[in-house]
Amino acid sequence: MEKVKAAVVGASGYSGEELVALLARHPRVEIVAVTSRQSAGETVARVFPRLAGSALAGLKFIEPSVAALEKSGAETVFLALPHGLAAEFAGPLRQAGRQVVDLSADFRLKSAEVFAEFYGERHPAPDLLAESVYALPEILGHDALKGAGLLACPGCYPTSILVPLIPLLRGKLLDPASLVINSQSGVSGAGRKAEEALLFAECNESLRAYGAPKHRHLSEIEQELSAAAGCAVTVTFTPHLVPVTRGMISTIVATPVGRADAELVEAVWREAYRGRSFVRVVSHLPDSKHVTKTNFIDIAVREDQRTGRLLLFSALDNLGKGAASQAVQAFNLSQGWDETLGLI
Amino acid sequence: MEKVKAAVVGASGYSGEELVALLARHPRVEIVAVTSRQSAGETVARVFPRLAGSALAGLKFIEPSVAALEKSGAETVFLALPHGLAAEFAGPLRQAGRQVVDLSADFRLKSAEVFAEFYGERHPAPDLLAESVYALPEILGHDALKGAGLLACPGCYPTSILVPLIPLLRGKLLDPASLVINSQSGVSGAGRKAEEALLFAECNESLRAYGAPKHRHLSEIEQELSAAAGCAVTVTFTPHLVPVTRGMISTIVATPVGRADAELVEAVWREAYRGRSFVRVVSHLPDSKHVTKTNFIDIAVREDQRTGRLLLFSALDNLGKGAASQAVQAFNLSQGWDETLGLI
Amino acid sequence: MEKVKAAVVGASGYSGEELVALLARHPRVEIVAVTSRQSAGETVARVFPRLAGSALAGLKFIEPSVAALEKSGAETVFLALPHGLAAEFAGPLRQAGRQVVDLSADFRLKSAEVFAEFYGERHPAPDLLAESVYALPEILGHDALKGAGLLACPGCYPTSILVPLIPLLRGKLLDPASLVINSQSGVSGAGRKAEEALLFAECNESLRAYGAPKHRHLSEIEQELSAAAGCAVTVTFTPHLVPVTRGMISTIVATPVGRADAELVEAVWREAYRGRSFVRVVSHLPDSKHVTKTNFIDIAVREDQRTGRLLLFSALDNLGKGAASQAVQAFNLSQGWDETLGLI
Amino acid sequence: MEKVKAAVVGASGYSGEELVALLARHPRVEIVAVTSRQSAGETVARVFPRLAGSALAGLKFIEPSVAALEKSGAETVFLALPHGLAAEFAGPLRQAGRQVVDLSADFRLKSAEVFAEFYGERHPAPDLLAESVYALPEILGHDALKGAGLLACPGCYPTSILVPLIPLLRGKLLDPASLVINSQSGVSGAGRKAEEALLFAECNESLRAYGAPKHRHLSEIEQELSAAAGCAVTVTFTPHLVPVTRGMISTIVATPVGRADAELVEAVWREAYRGRSFVRVVSHLPDSKHVTKTNFIDIAVREDQRTGRLLLFSALDNLGKGAASQAVQAFNLSQGWDETLGLI
Repeated sequence: MEKVKAAVVGASGYSGEELVALLARHPRVEIVAVTSRQSAGETVARVFPRLAGSALAGLKFIEPSVAALEKSGAETVFLALPHGLAAEFAGPLRQAGRQVVDLSADFRLKSAEVFAEFYGERHPAPDLLAESVYALPEILGHDALKGAGLLACPGCYPTSILVPLIPLLRGKLLDPASLVINSQSGVSGAGRKAEEALLFAECNESLRAYGAPKHRHLSEIEQELSAAAGCAVTVTFTPHLVPVTRGMISTIVATPVGRADAELVEAVWREAYRGRSFVRVVSHLPDSKHVTKTNFIDIAVREDQRTGRLLLFSALDNLGKGAASQAVQAFNLSQGWDETLGLI
Repeated sequence: MEKVKAAVVGASGYSGEELVALLARHPRVEIVAVTSRQSAGETVARVFPRLAGSALAGLKFIEPSVAALEKSGAETVFLALPHGLAAEFAGPLRQAGRQVVDLSADFRLKSAEVFAEFYGERHPAPDLLAESVYALPEILGHDALKGAGLLACPGCYPTSILVPLIPLLRGKLLDPASLVINSQSGVSGAGRKAEEALLFAECNESLRAYGAPKHRHLSEIEQELSAAAGCAVTVTFTPHLVPVTRGMISTIVATPVGRADAELVEAVWREAYRGRSFVRVVSHLPDSKHVTKTNFIDIAVREDQRTGRLLLFSALDNLGKGAASQAVQAFNLSQGWDETLGLI
Repeated sequence: MEKVKAAVVGASGYSGEELVALLARHPRVEIVAVTSRQSAGETVARVFPRLAGSALAGLKFIEPSVAALEKSGAETVFLALPHGLAAEFAGPLRQAGRQVVDLSADFRLKSAEVFAEFYGERHPAPDLLAESVYALPEILGHDALKGAGLLACPGCYPTSILVPLIPLLRGKLLDPASLVINSQSGVSGAGRKAEEALLFAECNESLRAYGAPKHRHLSEIEQELSAAAGCAVTVTFTPHLVPVTRGMISTIVATPVGRADAELVEAVWREAYRGRSFVRVVSHLPDSKHVTKTNFIDIAVREDQRTGRLLLFSALDNLGKGAASQAVQAFNLSQGWDETLGLI
Repeated sequence: MEKVKAAVVGASGYSGEELVALLARHPRVEIVAVTSRQSAGETVARVFPRLAGSALAGLKFIEPSVAALEKSGAETVFLALPHGLAAEFAGPLRQAGRQVVDLSADFRLKSAEVFAEFYGERHPAPDLLAESVYALPEILGHDALKGAGLLACPGCYPTSILVPLIPLLRGKLLDPASLVINSQSGVSGAGRKAEEALLFAECNESLRAYGAPKHRHLSEIEQELSAAAGCAVTVTFTPHLVPVTRGMISTIVATPVGRADAELVEAVWREAYRGRSFVRVVSHLPDSKHVTKTNFIDIAVREDQRTGRLLLFSALDNLGKGAASQAVQAFNLSQGWDETLGLI
């Protein structure tokens, strides 16, 4: 079975490491290059001791450059870089005919103005925005990703929020002005950055909101919710940092429209996600520990009959369905393969 | 300086242990009895190794009974018992002229009907409800607790929610129908119960909502919010279990009335809590680790200008301000002492 | 490709759950029955929400009984039961011609007397001891497990200790009387038992030795070390409980014989484990997080030139190489398959 | 009651913060200055949100300098600085007649050569070594610290090891050549340093040895053990990093001399520590959670009758008895006060 030659750029972060681990086991992928500025020259086994003993163990990190990536023969390049930096690679790589799967925020927004508003800088490559696809597989038609050249993989918070909400907004079941969203993220979501606020002794036995009221992920959340609702949607979103390494849950409060109740919500979800392998409608309240190290997202609903509101719950792995494994899922679909390839 | 003789009933739970530790260091308290069905006959040092080396180390737990408590000479009896059980002690002790400081839910509600609705059983001593005072010191007038014979100490979730909300509802700054509350609690809040769901391996690396949409604490939350607002208030409240031992944060979303903004909220809080020692209005987003093992509650506000909503934040220690140290604070005030005695 | 029909008995514990998850993905296994006294009648998806969405999701737990296992058609039965109980199943199943892979302690010891000494009860099936194989694959010859009918899978502590020590004792590199072993185990190692000592609030922020000086696992540790050394070996072994869910490390101090230094130790290890897929000789000090959710064991050596001693280090996953995945590895070899099947 | 004016230099680290919190509540201390290069100009409340609401809340950090410290009127200066840096302050301050309580390693060793060997640099102020006192109160005579001008506070590992061992070595109960020591430390022991290895996502669910075989603390451990034994003592010492914020345990294996058994060990300990408030000889195996946020050290003994060895156990808080509260205890004794002042 022929394999696609792939490279991972910025592989030394948490999402990058996860991507490398997933692609190393993927039956249709051959990793031909991994790049890391700080680890160039070192082997995968040394930088990621977890991967010692794997087929990739001896592969050496190289300095990131478009030339080196072209030379590697990579047909698909996964970018696990900070926003702003990803665009520097994406443009030349697309021009050279490479497929780009980008995990950063650079190509998620359709509007360069919104990017500038939320990221505080001019968009680095606005001409690529038209080509990019917001690669949340479950909200796209089944073949929508097939052949896509520039995949903009969603953020972790957006994934946890969009999967439960989009079918309900499309179906006009919720008042889009009523959405109040609280999310909790594990610390790996902040990246492998040597910052005091992310030290064990600062995060352990600590619970805290942060980034409120205007977290950057709001931009893509509202872009996609607005598209689903058919009108401009603005939401209240409060992220929290909690002491787990991996895991994310979201609790969404919404006012239903008309007769929308829990039963209808579940029915709409099941219909919307029929045939999709990674969305699980569950009857219990989702627990992040049931989805860590998987590509699943668990969703559930409760009626708050006393206030007439609906409560929606989701759980995913911020490095899995919220980042690396979802990127692989989207890549699978872009190649015309089963979305579960290498993921189950 | 004369001391009040005190007993702690049900001392072997987490709140009970915390109470014993606090009272052991209190300059105006002499502990004359600690009870525990399962630990009767054993010393404090053996049951609570942390208290070995303290003055109480050699004190032996006794079986709980009203007769034994009377015999111990206790003037004040702290009840750290499950709801339902506390009332069995409170009645006879009050008849015998003892002051009762109850940490259970038995005397928090003014209505036996509401108790029955939320706790699923008839109230065990409805005739005592009229006497009891809901002992959240900061929302009472300064002398309101002085001489109180039956103090009903608030729950942890209610404390974290009522302190930020009550002055704002009293001041008509918020639309009472708009309240959406998310809370996160450390695992000690569930008590020292040998249940599978509370095992380390079940809670560690786990994030989960629970008890939605009708947690028992809603009853006292809404009772007090309604009293503050002057109208019936119903709220959406979602508690979550997160992997810390101690700590609780609440994030409250509300629609302001009129021109209420962050500045006004802070001004109202500062006025309402002037002279109170344990409420800190902070400019950063509260972090539970700054209040664990203290009686402080940190509160903060943010404006979500995009949606026009206000975000209120609080952090406390579920075993401290949410239970044991708040009970001591209320007890101090009931004795006419400074509220900080033994707590700072 | 033909599949072996397998059953898992006592599947609702942590090792059992891990086994079910591994076997569900195994290319040569078909799970035909899972048993659990407390979960009989419920589906795998309900009891293990993590496995919802897998092929096993709808399989129902049955009451454990030899008759039911025979009826299920299982050719191989994995026993994830407490010691003492496993033997009740192993005898009848062996008589019925089934292969038994036992994860309990029942068949690890060659001597029923030693069993009685360490477990405080008579051995429940001493006649089966002769047939059983102590199934630590790396210390057996490559084909030693082929066709084995009763596999006694090693405990987690023994695996972490025997893998680094056995080649060195066989090679007479260490003074067998000098061994001092300290180990740390994650809390899942204690099983899914609703005990107060295993609660999150008791284990979090807690470090403690336990079970010293005569932990039950000493019996199999010393049996195997003695066999390797060719003389009776007695060791000092202190296990500790530390707040991780999964993971185990051992630190072993030994006096070398003759010229044995770090270089020689590594050379002996590499020779002994040539061709074995799951032992990694590493140059850094092993970290449990690099082996969790894998079947790897990482080992390393340091010379303490100041005292003339050698320090040996190992890390594994107590539920992986220390239990479930090692059982699958041994099962693979018993079937004549590659030891990595279904594990990488 | 007159108070001693005190300053804390390098207050923004974990030990410094703990010191400030302890001294703020100390009945005989007035903090007149706190220094921090990075936080100069900011208030204590802002840098340490936990101390908002305390009497110190409004105190501003100043740049560290000897001149500023002299100007502050501080009579006693606590140095919570990295090794090497502390000596720069200690010399001038001693010349100016200030008492110095140093928490760094600069004055713990009697030999500048040993310092150079273990710390890899020349000792910065060898002339001060003669004056300094190794301020582990329990191993000194009761009045040994009275009036001391330069107190060298022991490290956390040394405290956990010396307290159990010194009385036994003085009493010739143990073979000094037989000592094998394993310790586990919480992550705060590594300081508030923005290093990748100390991130939450690197430490959580991770168990690892480090610093073996020649950790810097060995130098003071062996200096003091040798003094107690009356001969040169060399030990094997392996520290481990485990995922707790605070807490440290040590497990020591030793060969007894003659008839030394557990009973004798306990008797010797009780005699040696008679009248000392912070050493607790316990019958259970020590658990770090019973000593965190205290100045206690719990010690226990077990006989390993199978090997003839003794097992000694200790637990303390690495920031408490291992650093800040022990410094306060030593300071109390240097002033001629009760050692428990401000600590219980």
